[in-house]
Amino acid sequence: MIDDFTGRSPSRFALLIFSALILLFTLLFSLPIASSSGTSTPLADAFFTAVSVICVTGLSTVDMATHWSIVGHILVYIGVQIGAVGVLTLASILGMVISRRLGLRAKLMAASDSNPMRGHRGPVAEGQAVRLGEIGSLLATVALSLVVIEVAIAILLFPRMIIDGVPLGDAIWHSFYYSAMAFTNTGFTPNAEGLGTFANDYWFLSTLMLGVFLGALGFPVIYALKRHLFRTRFWSLHVKLTLVTTLILLFLGAGAFALLEYDNAKTFGSLNASDTVFQSIFLSMMTRSGGFASIEIADLNGSSLLVADMLMFIGGGSASTGGGIKVTTLAVIFLAALAEAKGSPDMEAFGRRIPPDVLRVALSVVLWGATIVALSCIILLQMTKAPLDHVLFDVISAFGTVGLSTGLTGELDNPAKYVLAMTMFLGRVGTVTLAAAVAASTTTRLYRRPEERPIVG
Amino acid sequence: MIDDFTGRSPSRFALLIFSALILLFTLLFSLPIASSSGTSTPLADAFFTAVSVICVTGLSTVDMATHWSIVGHILVYIGVQIGAVGVLTLASILGMVISRRLGLRAKLMAASDSNPMRGHRGPVAEGQAVRLGEIGSLLATVALSLVVIEVAIAILLFPRMIIDGVPLGDAIWHSFYYSAMAFTNTGFTPNAEGLGTFANDYWFLSTLMLGVFLGALGFPVIYALKRHLFRTRFWSLHVKLTLVTTLILLFLGAGAFALLEYDNAKTFGSLNASDTVFQSIFLSMMTRSGGFASIEIADLNGSSLLVADMLMFIGGGSASTGGGIKVTTLAVIFLAALAEAKGSPDMEAFGRRIPPDVLRVALSVVLWGATIVALSCIILLQMTKAPLDHVLFDVISAFGTVGLSTGLTGELDNPAKYVLAMTMFLGRVGTVTLAAAVAASTTTRLYRRPEERPIVG
Ligand SMILES: [K+]
Ligand SMILES: [K+]
Repeated sequence: MIDDFTGRSPSRFALLIFSALILLFTLLFSLPIASSSGTSTPLADAFFTAVSVICVTGLSTVDMATHWSIVGHILVYIGVQIGAVGVLTLASILGMVISRRLGLRAKLMAASDSNPMRGHRGPVAEGQAVRLGEIGSLLATVALSLVVIEVAIAILLFPRMIIDGVPLGDAIWHSFYYSAMAFTNTGFTPNAEGLGTFANDYWFLSTLMLGVFLGALGFPVIYALKRHLFRTRFWSLHVKLTLVTTLILLFLGAGAFALLEYDNAKTFGSLNASDTVFQSIFLSMMTRSGGFASIEIADLNGSSLLVADMLMFIGGGSASTGGGIKVTTLAVIFLAALAEAKGSPDMEAFGRRIPPDVLRVALSVVLWGATIVALSCIILLQMTKAPLDHVLFDVISAFGTVGLSTGLTGELDNPAKYVLAMTMFLGRVGTVTLAAAVAASTTTRLYRRPEERPIVG
Repeated sequence: MIDDFTGRSPSRFALLIFSALILLFTLLFSLPIASSSGTSTPLADAFFTAVSVICVTGLSTVDMATHWSIVGHILVYIGVQIGAVGVLTLASILGMVISRRLGLRAKLMAASDSNPMRGHRGPVAEGQAVRLGEIGSLLATVALSLVVIEVAIAILLFPRMIIDGVPLGDAIWHSFYYSAMAFTNTGFTPNAEGLGTFANDYWFLSTLMLGVFLGALGFPVIYALKRHLFRTRFWSLHVKLTLVTTLILLFLGAGAFALLEYDNAKTFGSLNASDTVFQSIFLSMMTRSGGFASIEIADLNGSSLLVADMLMFIGGGSASTGGGIKVTTLAVIFLAALAEAKGSPDMEAFGRRIPPDVLRVALSVVLWGATIVALSCIILLQMTKAPLDHVLFDVISAFGTVGLSTGLTGELDNPAKYVLAMTMFLGRVGTVTLAAAVAASTTTRLYRRPEERPIVG
């Protein structure tokens, strides 16, 4: 029982920190000085914005570019950095706790010097809390990566802004703002017209994609790549699974979007072949959880919206700024089905065997995600009577902290705003804390019940 | 390799029989004598009807009550019986093969005299084909159950028809027709106006529900209940899981429908409390895969449609006339998540431990089902540009062989009819044959790869 409490404390700690940050930013966004009109922002909108910023989602119930004052914009900028670092760190801490516990439980964990979460292994007692020093060290590493990558992305964006005639001050601010919004996978734009003039700029969009891609890989993968970029034999299974699944989803998604939208006059219909391919890849990447849009989402065909729903539900990498059930979760489930089809007793990938208890965690995460999305959809459908394609898209966008919208989010009543905010919150901290909570608790029993096999399927 | 072929032969046999039956009935429905107009029915409609009848789905692209002649109606009546018996038998045979193989593989299968699939255990060689005599005996038992139950249901319906003033000849024919459509979970009605005058008749609707309920439980459960109706200690885990999950879903669904529809003027808005409760239970039961409707499906709120989608996707019991991923599949996945949350090493239910390989089969079935539904939805959305709620509903109705429709199916173009027919076919034979195919094939390997644990969630 006591073991249960200490074991679950990291996930409770995460929930507490997130809730406190959201309340703080709700307060800050409510201040008259934060809005461009100089009046206090309504509570529902301030709360929704705070959740969207701290959970690096990018959905909004107000016009983000025009509603906020300079103070408001700076709050957004700081908020997404805190949200991203916090998310990465907490997720990493939780991941560390999971690795440790599972490692202890399984007593089989192979050494892997490319995964930072493996660096802290050693003989620790079950239920031992993560030491404060470790958290500090992890936080510093994560923050440093974030600064380095964001500055690099900003440097890539800046000359383009200057060439396009953006004034120097705006160019600097917008470069850093876009960079932060890309790497943290938030997706707000500083201009009222969204990506506007940059919507067809290959250099600009490619740089944004790079930022989103790195952010969505997750800290363990970034860390591994930093140490062993070209020495793939040092890559851990997690790194390989994340990269391969991310790339497969990217190109499958892009192919589907190109196929379904090439003759849609409202979206890619007027583009030539190479522009269609590029914009399809951009759209596919943004559903990973970036949230920038170079087209109106509501103009997409229903079929493309459904493809986007699936991609957004899957989301980014573990311990990343991306949301969703995570690419490795999907990979594990797919590997399980593959093993079953082959009649193989083990799940295998890249010459490694994945222990079966990982499948149970993956399944719990999917069940949890599907339940949140289904309940949120049912409630919002009943509240708004809006069409299912729009409700499902915006709900999954919230759950996966993607931030793309069909326009529904901007038209919600106050109660519906709270429902969607709760969806973002659960989507962001939910699956991670759940995974931690379930992995950290262990029931020991001295006997096993007799086995019996139901028929399934 | 040879073991692989013989092991998979039952599922290939099932596919072959189903395909042959569908082609035969396509031919028969194409004959001028089968239609009330005396002209040949277009191929797409004849094929769709044949698939719908043999897969006991109940969706239609023509007005079933008026389009067909008496010969056509008799073909439908015979077709659903063959489809139901065939489905039950083939599913049972496949289930038997699975039980055997898994039993051999696990070498742990507990004796359970209440499951007919367990009656054939014994020392059999891996890959041994099911003997023809066993198929015959199983077929006879299934056909007998079907006749006994359908006659009983018809006897319950008949006096009501007479009281309601239906002419004697019609009353007899309609009693047997409704009975067959209920127990086989097909859901066609003999009248042009659907349930019409019976839409508020408690006795009539309750009898239909009883038929649908028994059909959707599945043959192994019916068999067990026949032998040990009131001796629950003889019930196998499969029987208990099926009954409990079915009842939980029935009442959860009914509660959701009552809550979401009680103030919908087009559906339950004008009903009093007890009628609302009764109609909610009826609707919930019909999504199990019965397919009768006492209201217009398109009048339901979007939220209720989504609830219905979820219920239809789950479907009925294993080796039943119901479709979907099956209630035990859901139960196993839920039990796995529960075990994970409790930190328990084993999935447990009713004092029994469920071996972990059952989870992998369940997961494969769900992944297979979700893939079929997603692909079918994307294709039909692109073909029809119809709203997602209608497309999703009719696709899941087809996959789960439910037969309820928002009206979309009746308006499809010919190519779309074939897509939906394929969805019915895959939904009906797909999960069962997949389950058989995956369980029947075994890869043996002399070494195991080193273990490594990716991060999920
Ligand atoms: K985002
Ligand atoms: K049906």
